[in-house]
Parts: sequence; C-alpha cells; structure tokens
Amino acid sequence: MAEHMRIMLPGPTPCPDEVLKALSRPMINHRGPEFAQIVNACTAGVKWLYQTTHDLLTLTTSGTGAMESAIVNVLSPGDKVLALVSGEFGKRFATIARTYGAEVDVLEVPYGSPITPEVVSQKLAEGKPYHAVLLTHNETSTALLNPIDLIAPVIRRALPDTLILVDAVSGLGTSPLPVDELDLDVVVAGAQKAFMLPPGLAFASVSPRAWEAYAKAKMPRFYFDYGKARDMLAKGQTPWTPAISLFYGLEVAVRLLQEEGLDPIFKRHERLMRMVRAGARGLGLKLVVEEDRYASRAVTGIYAPEGMDPSVLRKTLQSRFGYVVAGGQGPLTPYIFRVGHLGYYDEADMLGLLAALEATLAALGEDIKPGAAVAAAQAELMPTKAIAR
Amino acid sequence: MAEHMRIMLPGPTPCPDEVLKALSRPMINHRGPEFAQIVNACTAGVKWLYQTTHDLLTLTTSGTGAMESAIVNVLSPGDKVLALVSGEFGKRFATIARTYGAEVDVLEVPYGSPITPEVVSQKLAEGKPYHAVLLTHNETSTALLNPIDLIAPVIRRALPDTLILVDAVSGLGTSPLPVDELDLDVVVAGAQKAFMLPPGLAFASVSPRAWEAYAKAKMPRFYFDYGKARDMLAKGQTPWTPAISLFYGLEVAVRLLQEEGLDPIFKRHERLMRMVRAGARGLGLKLVVEEDRYASRAVTGIYAPEGMDPSVLRKTLQSRFGYVVAGGQGPLTPYIFRVGHLGYYDEADMLGLLAALEATLAALGEDIKPGAAVAAAQAELMPTKAIAR
Repeated sequence: MAEHMRIMLPGPTPCPDEVLKALSRPMINHRGPEFAQIVNACTAGVKWLYQTTHDLLTLTTSGTGAMESAIVNVLSPGDKVLALVSGEFGKRFATIARTYGAEVDVLEVPYGSPITPEVVSQKLAEGKPYHAVLLTHNETSTALLNPIDLIAPVIRRALPDTLILVDAVSGLGTSPLPVDELDLDVVVAGAQKAFMLPPGLAFASVSPRAWEAYAKAKMPRFYFDYGKARDMLAKGQTPWTPAISLFYGLEVAVRLLQEEGLDPIFKRHERLMRMVRAGARGLGLKLVVEEDRYASRAVTGIYAPEGMDPSVLRKTLQSRFGYVVAGGQGPLTPYIFRVGHLGYYDEADMLGLLAALEATLAALGEDIKPGAAVAAAQAELMPTKAIAR
Repeated sequence: MAEHMRIMLPGPTPCPDEVLKALSRPMINHRGPEFAQIVNACTAGVKWLYQTTHDLLTLTTSGTGAMESAIVNVLSPGDKVLALVSGEFGKRFATIARTYGAEVDVLEVPYGSPITPEVVSQKLAEGKPYHAVLLTHNETSTALLNPIDLIAPVIRRALPDTLILVDAVSGLGTSPLPVDELDLDVVVAGAQKAFMLPPGLAFASVSPRAWEAYAKAKMPRFYFDYGKARDMLAKGQTPWTPAISLFYGLEVAVRLLQEEGLDPIFKRHERLMRMVRAGARGLGLKLVVEEDRYASRAVTGIYAPEGMDPSVLRKTLQSRFGYVVAGGQGPLTPYIFRVGHLGYYDEADMLGLLAALEATLAALGEDIKPGAAVAAAQAELMPTKAIAR
C-alpha cells in the first residue's frame, strides 16, 4: 500500500498545516476571556462565509447532528413538512423530521437530477400549508448542486411564512449561498468541508423567523438547544464544553479563507469541478450529473467504465497511488465513484488525481488514451467560461 | 496577566504533549481500514478504564450530549424515572429526562452531602416501579463522590430489572467504577476528564439489559442512536463523521493510561485529592464535602475565607500566578471555588497550586501562615492512610 495517503473525499478533506498545528495548543478555560475571543473571531469568520447577519451558532457535533438541530429547534410534532429529496442526504433530513414526529411529504427527483423551481412550484400549487420546507444545497451522494437561488424565491412567494431549512453541510463555502438575500431560515454546515478543518464542529445560522418558530416549537431538545447556545454565545461561550482544539483550528482556517476572499474561493471550487468533469469526459467516463450548472462544486460523481466494479477501481487507485476517493451511496453504489474537491485543494491536486486515474484504468485493462484526462483538465485552466444558468 | 496559564479545572484538563501532538496528524478516510484500527484500539482502551465487557460507544459530543444519549436510547415518554440528585449535574440529568417526556421523581440531598444507600433504600421502599434510576457518580458542582458501590446493589435488590443510568462524565477513571460488577446499565463519561484528552468525545457503556430496553424505547433519537453506533462499530466506524483528530489523541491517551495501570491511576487521583484537602485545611479553609470518603477524586470544592468573594480570589490567583481554578455552580456560587485534579496532574502540580493559593490569600489580606498548606499536603505524601468507608 502506498505510504502517502491522498484523500479526495467529500469530507474529511486535507487541512492546511497551520490549521493542524493549531490543534496541538494546550487547553485553556472555555469559560474565560481568552476562549471568548476565539469564539467571537470564529463566529465572525463563519458568518462571513455564510454571507449572513443572522445568528450563527457553532455546535460540537457532525453535520448530521446539525441537521437534527435544525429540525428539533423550530418544529413541533405533527407539523407538516415538505422534504425536497434529490439523494441520500435529502432522505436523511426527511427521516430526522419524521423521527421527531413531523408529518413529512416527500417530493423526490431521480438521482442525478436537480430539484427544479418548476417541480417545487407545481407541488406547492397543491396548496398545503407547510410549516417548513427541507432542502439540500449540495447533495453529496449524487454530487449535485440544487439551484437554491431559484428554488427559495418560489417557496417564499407561495408560502411567505414557511421556514426554509437548508442542509448545506457539504456545500457551504463551495458556491455562493447568500443566506440573508435568499431569506433562508436555518442553514447548517460542517467544518470538515470547505472550512478546511478536521470534523467535529458544525454550524447553524438562525433567522429572526426561525427564532419566532423556536419560541413555539415543541420537539424535545437539550444538547442541541439553539436558545441556550445563543444565550451563551453572548458571553463568548457555548452551553456545553466545546471541542476546544477544533476552535483553535477554526480561528486559523477562517483567517486563511478571508485572506483568499469569497469570490476567489467560489471560483476555485468551480474551476476544480470543471477540471475533474473535463478529465472524466476526456476518458469517456459518464458523469452522474450531466449538466454543468447542476454539478456539485464539492464533489464529482463518475460512473466506472461499464463492467468495472468501482470498488476495484478505488482500491487500485489507493494501493497503487495513495489516492482515496469515495464510493457511491444508496442505489448508485454499484456503479459510481466520487472525487472530493472541496476545501484545501488546488489545481495541481486535480491534475495529479486525474493522471493517477488514467494509469489506474490502464492497469485494470481499460483501453484509454494516456494523457487524455490531464489534457482535458488543462484546457479548463484557460480563461474561465461562464456556466449557463 | 501571567503569561503561563495553568488550568486546574474539573475539565478541560491539561493534556500530555504526546496527545496534543497526535491531534495535528493529517486527515484520513474515516471509512477505511486505517481509521478502523484506531477506533478499535480506542474502544479497547476505554473499556479497560471502564472495567467493562459491555458495548462501549464513542460519540462526538460533550458530556451533556452523552447524558442525553443515555436517556433517549432506553426510555419512552411517560416512563417513570427516579433521579438521585446531589448537585447541579444531577439536576441536569433529571431535566433531560423530563425534556424527553419521562415522569421524573427527584430524591435530592443537601448540597455537599452524598446520596447514601439508606436514603435510596427508604425511597425505593415506597414500592414505585421505576423504569430507570439516574445517578451521578462524581457530582462536579459540589465536588462530591457518591458511593455508587453501595447504592447500586440497593437499587438492584429492590428493582431487579430497573435500568441504572450513571453520569460518570467527570468521575470515570478517577476512582474505581467496576461497571459490570456493579451491574450498571448505561455509564457515560467525557474525554476531557481523566482521559487526558481535549473535549469533543464522550463515551457510553451499554449493558445487555440496556439493549433490551433500547429495542422498546420510544423517545426520539437520531444523532445519538446507540443501535446505529453499535452496527457501525462492528466495522470499526461511527455512523456519522467523527472528530478524527480527537480519536488520534485518544489512541495515545489510552496507551499512556494503560502504561500507568488502573490501580496507580486511581491511587494517584486519591493522593492528589488528599493533598488539596489537607492543604485547604492547613489554611483553615472549609471544604464543601466534609468527609474524606465522599470527597471527589476529580475536583475539590473549598469555601473562600469568610467575607471574601471567591471570584476575587480566583482572579487574583490567575492574574498573579496563572492558575485557573473553577468557580462554584448553582447556589454555592457566591461562596466556593473548586480545584480540579483529574487527568494529567501530579503531586508537584498540587504543591505548586497550594503555594500560589497561600500567596494569593496573603496578598488579599488574609492572616495565613505561609507554608501551612504546602506542609500539610506534603504530609500526605507519606505512605498512604486508607480512607474509611
């Protein structure tokens, strides 16, 4: 097995050395002014990437924990909820809501296809008074970017007071998601994604509308209680003992992100996405999401060549070259593999991965043209073509 | 303010350099064999400190999250629960159970006094069929060690099938808590305590009786679902993306603990506790818990001299000498301070703290005899006297 492991997963993703080093700092009092300063700097930085002035809470949990927090803080058992499902994580969001007693209607699109404003508009025309709509920003399982900028206004026009709860766990920071402008009520994200941090922290933005709902919501909650988190945040603290080391890292990570700048971050993710997609196409491989405008900026789903088990491809890629890519999730598992390109990645990482992918396919007996993927990806480094929307 | 911060809190506590350094290792795939090896080593090590053969689950959360997990996995709304309360954390356990719909009876003892087998026996003689009894091992808020070894058999005799759920968040690893021998059903602990790790991971042991209850329990749960955690643990994984860096640290920490040995770990904590108590008494300060046998091995609660605001004492101790001790919690807050001595501490740490405490009290105008605390603590370094039970 190759000694040097090169993870290219949709999280965890590699972290800058400076972030990793910060994790090793000694413990301090999480109820003292030194930690409050760190909490405040982190909160400001995350709000910047969220493009929000709403309250921003940091929870010691995974992305799934943050999804659960979005449900239990603003809903009551029996509340009617519409779940827009385009993959495994959309299903998970719906399952959590159901677990806590919501009445969940599901609008599901075929895997690989986006939720469109048209299907949402059609569904809402049925006139049901939903308390909340659940939406996935970046559907990691199919490597799909849902057009939230088009969907959110449709929901808001049809149901002005309905809560829009967004799972942006893997997508936030990979493409613009202007939370306030789109009037999104709770948006959750995970630190092990575009934030360039190891896993263990997750975020939730909470709109004034969401706070009103919180005051009436009756689902049980304690550890994930937003009110407690907001009250303690006013003192630069968290209600429960937080993952202090990860806050150290987050403070560094948000500084690095701010140095790069919002637009360059989004452009970089789009460019890496285009490189991987061009590379796959250059090898004649089929993409799970066909249209570029709906392609995830965080991860790309690629079908293995016909007749090839993607787990064999993945194992060979790792044992021969150290690259670790993800398998599929749900019904696509037997057919696809997924390449993560969110967070601390650059163009050289994509070129390297594609070159190793070519060699792997050749070693497995595929008739490919060596250099084809790399050449196609390089073409994307020319001045960027805009993606039609 | 002193540059060198010396935390002496009941968590977070200082961590060995080797543990902190491990946190900086690069990310790996949390679904791959490399991480499975780490998860398995950590699980085996934590089970050893737990003295249990039950299932042991590691959750990415705080101690409070683990307390919540103990409630929601084995109970249903409407279940009758007896909460044995000896301080703020006992109250919290009861509040969580109530939040999720349990019918909670509270048996509360005065702050600073232990739950005794006698009061429990008396309460259970009322004949109520409790589904579960909630118990605090080490009550951090009053620095009290409840005699679980005496209480658990009383509960088991009276109610053979009742679940015994134990908050050992701060106590586990500081004094013997033989989980299997005492027939405890769910025991939760936090990594930022005796485990010598930064916060962010917590543990739960789950007995066969608890698994039977799990199968019938109806409280909602998703992120904290024990069944999902058990199924994934069989593959060396966690259901949700875990705090990978903290697992790196935990693997090192459990190795260090195993090198020290169970009995030496418990003896060390008892010795440090005796040193702090002797030191406080040597200065004429009053202890919250008067009897040594009920004194927490994790933290010592000390009354400030009459008329002195403990927050002034704490601030001076920190600004002058860098030592950070904790304030009180709940009704004792205006009167006490608390010195943590769990985890990566040794005798020299206690001598240093006591010397600085002497100087601080003198600086604040107290008429103390310089050297009195240190001398009294040194006497405890003589061959250990057994503590009467």
